[in-house]
Amino acid sequence: MNIQFMKRAIELARNGMEQNEGGPFGCVIVKNGEILAEGNNRVTTDNDPTAHAEITAIRRACETIDDFQLTGCDLYTSCEPCPMCLGAIYWARPDRIFYACSRDDAADAGFDDEFIYRELDISPIERRISMKQIGRNEALVLFNEWKEKEDKFVY
Amino acid sequence: MNIQFMKRAIELARNGMEQNEGGPFGCVIVKNGEILAEGNNRVTTDNDPTAHAEITAIRRACETIDDFQLTGCDLYTSCEPCPMCLGAIYWARPDRIFYACSRDDAADAGFDDEFIYRELDISPIERRISMKQIGRNEALVLFNEWKEKEDKFVY
Repeated sequence: MNIQFMKRAIELARNGMEQNEGGPFGCVIVKNGEILAEGNNRVTTDNDPTAHAEITAIRRACETIDDFQLTGCDLYTSCEPCPMCLGAIYWARPDRIFYACSRDDAADAGFDDEFIYRELDISPIERRISMKQIGRNEALVLFNEWKEKEDKFVY
Repeated sequence: MNIQFMKRAIELARNGMEQNEGGPFGCVIVKNGEILAEGNNRVTTDNDPTAHAEITAIRRACETIDDFQLTGCDLYTSCEPCPMCLGAIYWARPDRIFYACSRDDAADAGFDDEFIYRELDISPIERRISMKQIGRNEALVLFNEWKEKEDKFVY
């Protein structure tokens, strides 16, 4: 663990905020003691709701190492990841996460992370965004084909 | 609700699987009765762990309408969204979600969605990926500046 990497994540957050690229969030991905990729929130600049600091940094890091897994990497983020970013982190599988502010701090600053955590924790029919299941039988055929598929690339 | 849009999502999933672009997942975003954007899983082709069908479709839809919100849109996905994608959906805020297979079906086909849902539901210190809080005081200064910032673009 190196506090300098967190300072860099916070610096990226500040730069992005000051340049009005998005919210005050920054992220750094480190491998073998060196920065592999950096990111800051670019939601409102890129018109991309997924362009959080962590997602941006993960996509860049994976592009750099030409892999969809971040094994052996550490992720430093200026705020506890929202559910979208934490999900992305689990799919990317870095070794460790370091975060500065908490989700409660984010909520206090006006960001909906805590609300989304609560929504994920309840059943689909209870959620604020309407969720309805249709066409399962037809889609299930695909999963069965996937299970039988011999040349698949498992991820 | 229109089952034809779900059939298209399933078709996209099948095409992506058959062309070995990624897992068997497809997504369609609809506005005013017309398809705004489509996506399928491209994780292993693009070396992008965030390139799930829903994220891909959301990014394309937002690019098409030049906005980071999908108000008035419906999202059709061939499988219940994983936590990353459900988080992205909450940030993008479409009106409704239609899904075919469930997260249990996905787990049965070898996809880790259910594991990630469980991880999100426990405290950071209990998680399989190590999470440690450092540098909060320094990062908190940023959130306070954000709250005071007069020219911010709230999202």
